Amino acid sequence: MISRAEAEALDRADPLAPLRQRVVIANPSRLYLDGNSLGRLPVATRVRLQQVIDAEWGEGLVESWAQWIDLDKRLGDKLACHFLGAAAGEVLVSDSTTVNLYKLVGAAVASGKTVLVTDGDNFPTDRYVLQGWAQQLGVTLNVFASHPVYGPQAAEVATALRHVPHGTALVCLSHVSYRSGALADMAAINAVVHQAGGWVLWDLCHAVGAVPIALHATGTELAVGCTYKYLNGGPGAPAFLYVRRDLQETLRSPIWGWFGQRDQFAFGAQYQPAPGVQRFATGTPPVVAMAAIEPGLDLLLEAGLERLRHKSIALTALLIALYDAWLAPYGFTLGTPREPQRRGSHVALRHPEAYRISRALLRAGVVVDFREPDTLRCGLAPLYTRFVDVWEAMDRLRTLMATQAYTAFSPTRARVT
Amino acid sequence: MISRAEAEALDRADPLAPLRQRVVIANPSRLYLDGNSLGRLPVATRVRLQQVIDAEWGEGLVESWAQWIDLDKRLGDKLACHFLGAAAGEVLVSDSTTVNLYKLVGAAVASGKTVLVTDGDNFPTDRYVLQGWAQQLGVTLNVFASHPVYGPQAAEVATALRHVPHGTALVCLSHVSYRSGALADMAAINAVVHQAGGWVLWDLCHAVGAVPIALHATGTELAVGCTYKYLNGGPGAPAFLYVRRDLQETLRSPIWGWFGQRDQFAFGAQYQPAPGVQRFATGTPPVVAMAAIEPGLDLLLEAGLERLRHKSIALTALLIALYDAWLAPYGFTLGTPREPQRRGSHVALRHPEAYRISRALLRAGVVVDFREPDTLRCGLAPLYTRFVDVWEAMDRLRTLMATQAYTAFSPTRARVT
Repeated sequence: MISRAEAEALDRADPLAPLRQRVVIANPSRLYLDGNSLGRLPVATRVRLQQVIDAEWGEGLVESWAQWIDLDKRLGDKLACHFLGAAAGEVLVSDSTTVNLYKLVGAAVASGKTVLVTDGDNFPTDRYVLQGWAQQLGVTLNVFASHPVYGPQAAEVATALRHVPHGTALVCLSHVSYRSGALADMAAINAVVHQAGGWVLWDLCHAVGAVPIALHATGTELAVGCTYKYLNGGPGAPAFLYVRRDLQETLRSPIWGWFGQRDQFAFGAQYQPAPGVQRFATGTPPVVAMAAIEPGLDLLLEAGLERLRHKSIALTALLIALYDAWLAPYGFTLGTPREPQRRGSHVALRHPEAYRISRALLRAGVVVDFREPDTLRCGLAPLYTRFVDVWEAMDRLRTLMATQAYTAFSPTRARVT
Repeated sequence: MISRAEAEALDRADPLAPLRQRVVIANPSRLYLDGNSLGRLPVATRVRLQQVIDAEWGEGLVESWAQWIDLDKRLGDKLACHFLGAAAGEVLVSDSTTVNLYKLVGAAVASGKTVLVTDGDNFPTDRYVLQGWAQQLGVTLNVFASHPVYGPQAAEVATALRHVPHGTALVCLSHVSYRSGALADMAAINAVVHQAGGWVLWDLCHAVGAVPIALHATGTELAVGCTYKYLNGGPGAPAFLYVRRDLQETLRSPIWGWFGQRDQFAFGAQYQPAPGVQRFATGTPPVVAMAAIEPGLDLLLEAGLERLRHKSIALTALLIALYDAWLAPYGFTLGTPREPQRRGSHVALRHPEAYRISRALLRAGVVVDFREPDTLRCGLAPLYTRFVDVWEAMDRLRTLMATQAYTAFSPTRARVT
């Protein structure tokens, strides 16, 4: 098996290694395999936040709205053109992923997409939003079972659409599964949905900044995503939504707010949706949180998305190799596809005792997520995760298993009732 | 008329004067009469933001969610108990005012309140949200004309409710009018609505932190408000919503998100609303923006809401007296009630040339808002606005009128098409 020295050699050869200094790493001994839950703080973001707090809010006060009023679209354009394979004017930074999903699903239903389709392993908020719309409007929600490791497949989607009337399906799926890390085949799934006259709404939360995304090339109609994982926008940073240009004028957000109103400051009596993607805005956006997004985007662009993907694949491959050598004997199974082109940037290690193992790992200085029912989710953000971090984290994990130190922790998560 | 020296004497006698140092005042010569649009930056907020950015995000990373997960409720409790006359567990900080309005109106409609009532001068986003729900669900929206200076009156509400079936009305009004500054009689209006078996949803954006609010004493069912005006929470800081305790378990947000889910991290298959006000949460909240709210609340509590109200009335009275003496001769009219108990903390000066006068005032170092069609809106946040600021601002305004310097500016706002 690869040695610690060999992992260190990989880091020395890593062209992205110098960029690690550009994010704050306060406790180098704490191994952070959770950048897919909350990305690290870029150094430049601290500077930008200081500026928005002191100069723009503190000093400029209300007059700073001249700079802030277009921030949602300016950041949206940067995401569209450089991260999503879309065009300027198609993406807006706004609200949370949940609220953006709600708006786009509502708009699609009102436009005739009255059969909602998703997979049972989709992220909870996606499923809940769809359940809510289905209940509220009495439309159909078809939930199909997807492969627990490989995620939703084009063939499964085709089966789920078999009895759906042509032109009525809205298929909502995650590009990268929050649990397994499976990367869905966007082109193949879109083709199947389009053949049925349907639309696809992709949730890009676990994909954006980590894997190539080609919304235009795949003909994607709608998408949402967050900015606080691989994009390093900060805890709960505002999310984004994408609406393909040709659909914008025919769609309406269910939430009619003054930031989505044509000529907002005319304060007109009647709501008239603004032109373009702006109509999907709602209320006053949280400027300080939104301003924190841009330096993280610029840092990823400086790294280069192809180089990030290349390193991400190498990191996840290393983790899987270490799993094979060290962890499979302790009863772990791999919850993530082995084929690099079929996974994102996190790896799921499944074990019946995953919850208490995750607690013990935290105590041992390795930050991973536990995801019900049995998954240790190891996020390997390529911008700042080193090969030696992966090696060291897996080494600590095998030690925990060898010593059974994890049995000192409570076996199950405390339920909230 | 009062002299500048007399205004300065009022400031010397002001018990709140020392608190002015506790907010950032970068340009003392720039007179800021716009704290009702965006409150100033409290010095303690800079410290808190530094902490949330560096220590909580930068260092604590995902583990800081242990502190963040209850922030929406903790801030809600502080608002409920100290600002709103409500109880702990009834208020949640969440989303924007627009989205909160949307959620509460939707919940009320689903619960049988199928006749929506508002006044035509209500803030645009309130009217648009109601229009959206009316269009979406085919329910009735009654818009009544309220008095342009005194705002909605109980008698007007009674008339608007005359033909509404008992028990079906949801009346949505602003406690303080965004334009006129009129303070609605919450108790009297609630009594009329309750007599008709209806509910009231109060928009508290221009009221909270400036006027006494007694949600429980008046039997208010629902309310929303923002935190970036008199509460100084920062640009676009998350808003709040209030749902009276006894209604919480019967109401459901139309937006079913994972932050409103019972036992959120069980990631259950089926959405089950969380107990209490938490069910009105949606997605991941913008933590950095939310954390900025608390120091502003604490600062107002240190000042004391009664003392703030007392000073606010004195400030607005001074402005009205100066208007009478200096501005009425130039064609201004007063757009705000003269009776102190009938106004909030801003004063509307109406003039046919208001737009270009507002531009000229900005150039002269006086920051006020222009509001269509003819209003200069002068916000007098009592925490940091001095009597001499009011005196000096009105002095600059009368000079502009005497010299007609404002005619150098474009007569109308540029329309956005």
